[in-house]
Amino acid sequence: MRVNAYAAPASGQPLAPTTIERRDVGAGDVLIAIEYAGICHSDIHTVNGDWGPQPFPLVPGHEIVGTVTEVGSDVTRHAVGDRVGVGCMVNSCGECDNCRAGDEQYCRQGMVGTYAATDRDGTTTQGGYSTHVVVDADYVLSVPESLDAAAATPLLCAGITTYSPLKHWQAGPGKKVAVVGLGGLGHMAVKIAHAMGAEVTVLSQSLKKMEDGLRLGADHYYATSDPETFEALADTFDLIINTVSAKIDISAHLGLLAVNGAMVNVGAPAEPLDVNVFSLLTNRRSFSGSMIGGIAQTQEMLDFCAEHGIASEVEVIPVDQVNEAYERVLASDVRYRFVIDASTLA
Amino acid sequence: MRVNAYAAPASGQPLAPTTIERRDVGAGDVLIAIEYAGICHSDIHTVNGDWGPQPFPLVPGHEIVGTVTEVGSDVTRHAVGDRVGVGCMVNSCGECDNCRAGDEQYCRQGMVGTYAATDRDGTTTQGGYSTHVVVDADYVLSVPESLDAAAATPLLCAGITTYSPLKHWQAGPGKKVAVVGLGGLGHMAVKIAHAMGAEVTVLSQSLKKMEDGLRLGADHYYATSDPETFEALADTFDLIINTVSAKIDISAHLGLLAVNGAMVNVGAPAEPLDVNVFSLLTNRRSFSGSMIGGIAQTQEMLDFCAEHGIASEVEVIPVDQVNEAYERVLASDVRYRFVIDASTLA
Repeated sequence: MRVNAYAAPASGQPLAPTTIERRDVGAGDVLIAIEYAGICHSDIHTVNGDWGPQPFPLVPGHEIVGTVTEVGSDVTRHAVGDRVGVGCMVNSCGECDNCRAGDEQYCRQGMVGTYAATDRDGTTTQGGYSTHVVVDADYVLSVPESLDAAAATPLLCAGITTYSPLKHWQAGPGKKVAVVGLGGLGHMAVKIAHAMGAEVTVLSQSLKKMEDGLRLGADHYYATSDPETFEALADTFDLIINTVSAKIDISAHLGLLAVNGAMVNVGAPAEPLDVNVFSLLTNRRSFSGSMIGGIAQTQEMLDFCAEHGIASEVEVIPVDQVNEAYERVLASDVRYRFVIDASTLA
Repeated sequence: MRVNAYAAPASGQPLAPTTIERRDVGAGDVLIAIEYAGICHSDIHTVNGDWGPQPFPLVPGHEIVGTVTEVGSDVTRHAVGDRVGVGCMVNSCGECDNCRAGDEQYCRQGMVGTYAATDRDGTTTQGGYSTHVVVDADYVLSVPESLDAAAATPLLCAGITTYSPLKHWQAGPGKKVAVVGLGGLGHMAVKIAHAMGAEVTVLSQSLKKMEDGLRLGADHYYATSDPETFEALADTFDLIINTVSAKIDISAHLGLLAVNGAMVNVGAPAEPLDVNVFSLLTNRRSFSGSMIGGIAQTQEMLDFCAEHGIASEVEVIPVDQVNEAYERVLASDVRYRFVIDASTLA
């Protein structure tokens, strides 16, 4: 099956229209007619080669919402006509201790990414900037009908990436949670942490987006460019979600954690970060990381968002604006996530 | 009360005999006739000025075992003749949330260190390289009589510093624990983790101390100078206790952690450490710190060690060998802790 897509022809090159081959629908597969595909900062890192060499041409996109149009003979969890989603992974070994524990993203054989990865059948995966995709049914999520399809799309990456650490580190009533950076990931972290019942503080470089932050659910908003922020908030937070994927002063931020507090990176700066060990010894602090979430937890997150009526703030664009959108993401000029209308690919 | 002591007259100067003033025994105080005082690497860092300027002359020593010779009128938990111990702290506010939670070491007013700190009465504390010390009874531990007094002395710092993170991160049956560095702290971590029922691996620069490590309770022993160690043990440990206070390759060691694993620093290198964030994102890992332990937990640790018949491996020295002992500690030439016989100060 040959389908329309937008691909980067080579590292750092603008994306352009193309066609790609999708595999036949196997016994365990689902064919999805894509409605929306989100633009994640990772897409840009990947096509620009920031994270190492990649297989080109490369179709990015790991935030996908669409409708099931065909299912394999063994598929029971999805049916034709269902609204479904696909996130950052489309396969894993399914047999290791981590997969069995629901942490497929940490599969000991390596999870299979939704694009630029080698699938278990040896083919290279291609992502959601496309009209259709064929995915193993076990890696396909149900997207509740009460959510707006476009606004739900970024939940598949930005949503689970922030939900997972908030859940793991037990954000909830009585907990003080800070979110560093109010972008695609950060605005979801604020909404979800607020819905979980935590007291939420945004730590942003400036106060530029303060009105937005408070509207999205933050209780407090501070500028990290102001050194007084670090004095005023010393030893305060139980959890800090750091969504910034550039180099920031980690030790200064660690100083904001109370006893047993954790600062969790969900962004991935390419260069190493400096950590002053004294800032960890004090208050038994942790500097941690978290990468998306497992399939069962992703479904839990979608249901949680539907229950609380939350989704992403999106700007829907036709696919021919994707290169411009990349520029705007790099300039932090989006509130808060671009979503491609896949009907413009037809 | 004027008592004999050994003090550093100035930063980086050899320690020399002197006399110091001990305060009168207050209503809540205990007077202790010191029998043994351990030599901790921190003593050396402090007198050498590695951790910033200090008040001189300075009497180090925060691993103290002795006998109670006088108690204040309000003291009920200790009596004349009891064998007791003092660790790294001799006071805290007692009123903040951390103190009330038993984490006096993270007191929001700052704990009062056993030496080179300003006590709550405004005087400068002086440590255990001395014949006597007066300490608030609430910060004095009971040392079980079944433990050898000299061998029990390092438990007051090296013991609790390693027990506390092993307990907090739940070392026990079914858990794989690695200990980086087999020195004063490391050898206690091996003994305690083994007594807790964990599977224990020593990660040492070379295999020089392997026989010792296995005798102390380790199940496995690997050299970190061998790059194959990092391949063979990738994604293995639930907990790594890093006792090395020099700069090591943190990211490589993080790669040895399984899902949800934590690497906990108990040593404090003066320079910042580089952390590659990808090594944290994978497996939801944490790089953490832990500083000694609270008073109740220190008592729990002493009782645990008595129950399991474990203490430190010590080399007992007369006080006039203290400067030579410092040189040997810096050269890692001690198995595994020097303890000063305080009767040589009389």
